[in-house]
Amino acid sequence: MASVDFLAGERRKAEFDVDAMKIAWAGSLSEFQLHDRISKLVASDPALSKEGRTMMPRKELFKNALRKVNHAWKLINELRLTEEEARKFRFYMDEPAYTDLHWGMFVPAIKGSGTEEQQKKWLPLAYKMQIIGCYAQTELGHGSNVQGLETTATFDPRTDEFVIHSPTLTSSKWWPGGLGKASTHAVVYARLIVDGKDYGVNGFIVQLRSLEDHKPLPGITVGDIGMKFGSGAYNTMDNGVLRFDHVRIPRDQMLMRVSQVTRDGKYVQSDVPRQLLYGTMVYVRQAIVSDASTALSRAVCIATRYSAVRRQFGLQNDGQETQVIDYKTQQSRLFPLLASAYAFRFVGEWLKSLYTDVTEKLQAGDFSTLPEAHACTAGLKSLTTSATADGIEECRKLCGGHGYLNSSGLPELFAVYIPACTYEGDNTVLHLQVARFLMKTVSQLFSGKHPVGTTAYMGRLQQLLQCRSNVQQAKDWMNPSAVLEAYEARAARMIASCAKNLNNFANSEDGFAELSSDLVEAAVAHCQVIVVSKFFEKLQQDIPGNGVKQQLENLFGIYSLYLIHKHQGDFLATGCITPKQASLANDQLRALYTLVRPNAVALVDAFNYTDHFLGSILGRYDGNVYPKLYEEAWKDPLNETVVPDGYHEYIRPLLKQQLGIARL
Amino acid sequence: MASVDFLAGERRKAEFDVDAMKIAWAGSLSEFQLHDRISKLVASDPALSKEGRTMMPRKELFKNALRKVNHAWKLINELRLTEEEARKFRFYMDEPAYTDLHWGMFVPAIKGSGTEEQQKKWLPLAYKMQIIGCYAQTELGHGSNVQGLETTATFDPRTDEFVIHSPTLTSSKWWPGGLGKASTHAVVYARLIVDGKDYGVNGFIVQLRSLEDHKPLPGITVGDIGMKFGSGAYNTMDNGVLRFDHVRIPRDQMLMRVSQVTRDGKYVQSDVPRQLLYGTMVYVRQAIVSDASTALSRAVCIATRYSAVRRQFGLQNDGQETQVIDYKTQQSRLFPLLASAYAFRFVGEWLKSLYTDVTEKLQAGDFSTLPEAHACTAGLKSLTTSATADGIEECRKLCGGHGYLNSSGLPELFAVYIPACTYEGDNTVLHLQVARFLMKTVSQLFSGKHPVGTTAYMGRLQQLLQCRSNVQQAKDWMNPSAVLEAYEARAARMIASCAKNLNNFANSEDGFAELSSDLVEAAVAHCQVIVVSKFFEKLQQDIPGNGVKQQLENLFGIYSLYLIHKHQGDFLATGCITPKQASLANDQLRALYTLVRPNAVALVDAFNYTDHFLGSILGRYDGNVYPKLYEEAWKDPLNETVVPDGYHEYIRPLLKQQLGIARL
Repeated sequence: MASVDFLAGERRKAEFDVDAMKIAWAGSLSEFQLHDRISKLVASDPALSKEGRTMMPRKELFKNALRKVNHAWKLINELRLTEEEARKFRFYMDEPAYTDLHWGMFVPAIKGSGTEEQQKKWLPLAYKMQIIGCYAQTELGHGSNVQGLETTATFDPRTDEFVIHSPTLTSSKWWPGGLGKASTHAVVYARLIVDGKDYGVNGFIVQLRSLEDHKPLPGITVGDIGMKFGSGAYNTMDNGVLRFDHVRIPRDQMLMRVSQVTRDGKYVQSDVPRQLLYGTMVYVRQAIVSDASTALSRAVCIATRYSAVRRQFGLQNDGQETQVIDYKTQQSRLFPLLASAYAFRFVGEWLKSLYTDVTEKLQAGDFSTLPEAHACTAGLKSLTTSATADGIEECRKLCGGHGYLNSSGLPELFAVYIPACTYEGDNTVLHLQVARFLMKTVSQLFSGKHPVGTTAYMGRLQQLLQCRSNVQQAKDWMNPSAVLEAYEARAARMIASCAKNLNNFANSEDGFAELSSDLVEAAVAHCQVIVVSKFFEKLQQDIPGNGVKQQLENLFGIYSLYLIHKHQGDFLATGCITPKQASLANDQLRALYTLVRPNAVALVDAFNYTDHFLGSILGRYDGNVYPKLYEEAWKDPLNETVVPDGYHEYIRPLLKQQLGIARL
Repeated sequence: MASVDFLAGERRKAEFDVDAMKIAWAGSLSEFQLHDRISKLVASDPALSKEGRTMMPRKELFKNALRKVNHAWKLINELRLTEEEARKFRFYMDEPAYTDLHWGMFVPAIKGSGTEEQQKKWLPLAYKMQIIGCYAQTELGHGSNVQGLETTATFDPRTDEFVIHSPTLTSSKWWPGGLGKASTHAVVYARLIVDGKDYGVNGFIVQLRSLEDHKPLPGITVGDIGMKFGSGAYNTMDNGVLRFDHVRIPRDQMLMRVSQVTRDGKYVQSDVPRQLLYGTMVYVRQAIVSDASTALSRAVCIATRYSAVRRQFGLQNDGQETQVIDYKTQQSRLFPLLASAYAFRFVGEWLKSLYTDVTEKLQAGDFSTLPEAHACTAGLKSLTTSATADGIEECRKLCGGHGYLNSSGLPELFAVYIPACTYEGDNTVLHLQVARFLMKTVSQLFSGKHPVGTTAYMGRLQQLLQCRSNVQQAKDWMNPSAVLEAYEARAARMIASCAKNLNNFANSEDGFAELSSDLVEAAVAHCQVIVVSKFFEKLQQDIPGNGVKQQLENLFGIYSLYLIHKHQGDFLATGCITPKQASLANDQLRALYTLVRPNAVALVDAFNYTDHFLGSILGRYDGNVYPKLYEEAWKDPLNETVVPDGYHEYIRPLLKQQLGIARL
């Protein structure tokens, strides 16, 4: 079949160097090359096809995921991929599996919380996958509140063992990925009980299944918790339930880097500072932000290409209808998401450098920036995952009816993405943590403590409480300083206002509870300052490539002005801008949509996603949507026969009025 | 097993007569009794259980749906249910099936567009289900733009037949429910071609399958379009694809109530006014609004009950953690949705009366109120379905991690609901229609034409452009007139502002396109006036029952003040309220949350949903969540064996390092 490109016309319109933009998106030439090579490696392997995934019944789906993991592991070894390459390989396989937890949580938990000796014993087994591990923290009754976990690990000095036990139904471990069917081991979080005293939650390495026949060991009840949102999606994963009936493990399987239990039953804190563990949290959350930009950009890529293919209404002179992407209503919903994908990409890149920075400081024993880094990652995790979840669904709606078909790829993308709003800290809980940090920052201002990092602007609080935007015409909004000042002023004023209102409460905790909604809004405003300012910082860098920086400046304008429009209430209520200025921002936004329009398809091409990774007929690179949608339909199991199974039993008797109806 | 009620304490807290509220919700005692009786009839029938639906592979799922439809039809006949009872029965079965289209679209299409003779011929067959019909309008290439459909129906005067044909791939009928596998007949919409002239889109009754063996008739290609969003959900339905290769039907199978083709090939308009057909559209959309309140209230019922069961953080004196529903962050997300469910319920009730009113006027030949009724239903369809789709997902998030399990019922509710944002008019397209009507209304003001119905307030435009809210303290916002005035002023000003900006364009269509985002926002503001004012009107009525009206007043306050907060930008930018007044609205909102809190569980009990209809473990009436979640997990097919299928092929070789890796 001749290869077609129905989007060639769109691609010719681009006013910038797409290859250079690919590198800007990836972060560097080498990163681009790595992604490009690995994603194509995965895409070209028929054994890793995603075909039919949403049609498979659960058991088949899970078995298929096991097959792929096995195949990938073989390839990873045969090709001698580096750790980084292997991670990318699993990423581009684009299918949740037990290995995500084995590599992403089990290994890091042992690395982070295990002693050197424990690492020496367990890591080689894990690296070779001679054991499969998962991370058993959340329980049926406790998710966000880790300190409320109920599973117990009671030290038995007679035998030098811990007895792991599930004392209640709600203490059943619930949700850990890879636990249900695949894992042989788990890092189990349980309350450490020594001599009747509760020392809080600690991690323990527990073998769950026999390495000979995979059967659960005595005292262990383990299974899958059942199907989850969507078809395909996270149902390839065996999220599990686990109960312990007085399961004994040797004392040396408590992860003892930070605290230990001695042979004679003494609880001892090591000299390793507990804060070191927080470094991991920063790492995990920066990865989540990076994943947010990936997920959102996938959805945007699909919706943008399809919006260029789809025509509806508005007959043009050439006899064709108007491309959907030419409608301002479509642009005003789609382009802010395109801009958000880029914004999240760059803030994610910055977070990576923050992580490196924090790690170095931690290793040097400097914990001073940790609270700020912690608040910053918590807030950005919350902001980007919420926006991405909503954005994917918005992209689906932008694809009209066909977006509802699994073959559009969007239902599965949504279903597989949304847990990110809940795991690693529920988004509302995280925003409240940010707010708490901000309130502390404000109160410390008065004692002369200078806020650092992303809260540095709070040091100019007095100025920010008084400044007035000097935007006078629409194009003044293209001045990033004007934008940034408005954002900082709005956030500072909302934060200050919360702090003031809290003072009206006799009990500050009562106040915090009562005003929590306002506090969340202030935290969001603060996090938007971070995203906008990091995007702005990116634009200060040298970005090679013809027209590339210009496009990014347009996207920066769209991202920041779109949010000003969306949160107009905040900006006006705090008096940072006037209604007239808000209206000018909106005018400028429309002008930017017009500028981005001819570049839209090229801007999503710059993500460099393979059709395999996109997994969407609507988002196909070649725009050959309709014939492929039509082809795909016939693959549904219902189409195996012309006359459906059930016709003779249930349709024919009805048509022929042979139901044997008993008149009651 | 002893029956438990873990929510009994919550129910005791209620400050109103729940039974009376059930009647207020249902609309009348007789409506309540009807719903109550039919929903329990369905719930008590084991053959109509929804158990395991999300785990079934497609073919099994579809066959199971056929079985249920068959069973239901038998019962409906045996019990001699009325048409209304039968409709409720199908509604409470809560499973999309071909009968939805047969009864909801095929029959009404023939009734609405068929001549008396045609009705006499086809309706008895349809009523007895001796034929199964669907509604084949949308095509692969055309959804919203019905006038762009490509299927042709060419009159052949030699044989007195129409030749139905699919001239292009994109002309394939695509999406019609019940088409794929079940229907024997369809009302097919096609361009009528007579003597080479295109008379636009008309409806034709076409037989698709043999009534003897259900095989497609010659020239007809028909099948299912493949799986859609979610597991279970709309996958019980055979949305179909259909192509015609010069299929001939007798001339009398064109639906000829409004226009006809005579034996000698003349196209004739009948004296039946075309507007009569619009009555159906009003009917369908009022039903969609009513369904929105049902879907949203289901989600809210689940999230409210579970928020009362779930405890997390905040250890209380009694040793228990804080109920999640006690957190203001939870309340500020959940209670506005609870209030929205009631608001949509009442505006839906009013729409029913509007439909009756419109029908009477149409029959009397009075078409004057039709444009307003049309705009009003279009806008409310769009407003309520968007809010409901978002609201269901918000409720899912409010249930934390467990909301992601299919057993929570929320994933399926979301997946099955969201098409409502697209079908019967894409929500953005509909809002633009509303905006167009509003622009016309404004322009006619100057020619002295008085706006009617829901746009009547526009007649006070001058006053609304100048008024200032006189709210001075938080409780002033409990005065509905103050609220309504602010809403009317904001909408009027946004509408007037759009009209003014449109005047700056030489070509008004260009202006409309360029400003379409603003126009959509103005349309939303207008539709919110309708919902708020109809809720307010409801409160003017006599509503019996101890405390019932008080609760509804609180919910009215929450609905209206929540939206003022959400759209603060509009209210401030148009100068309808001051930042201080916006802040007071927010204070009052928090106070209302506190008032509603003890009544929350009782307010969702008032929906009177059976556990069968809710289909959610988290939303169980008895609050017995954890044991039932645990029980449910074990029913997953993956748990049929302790060691998963695939272990020997894919896990063991990996653990045992027997992958036969070829070092490349």
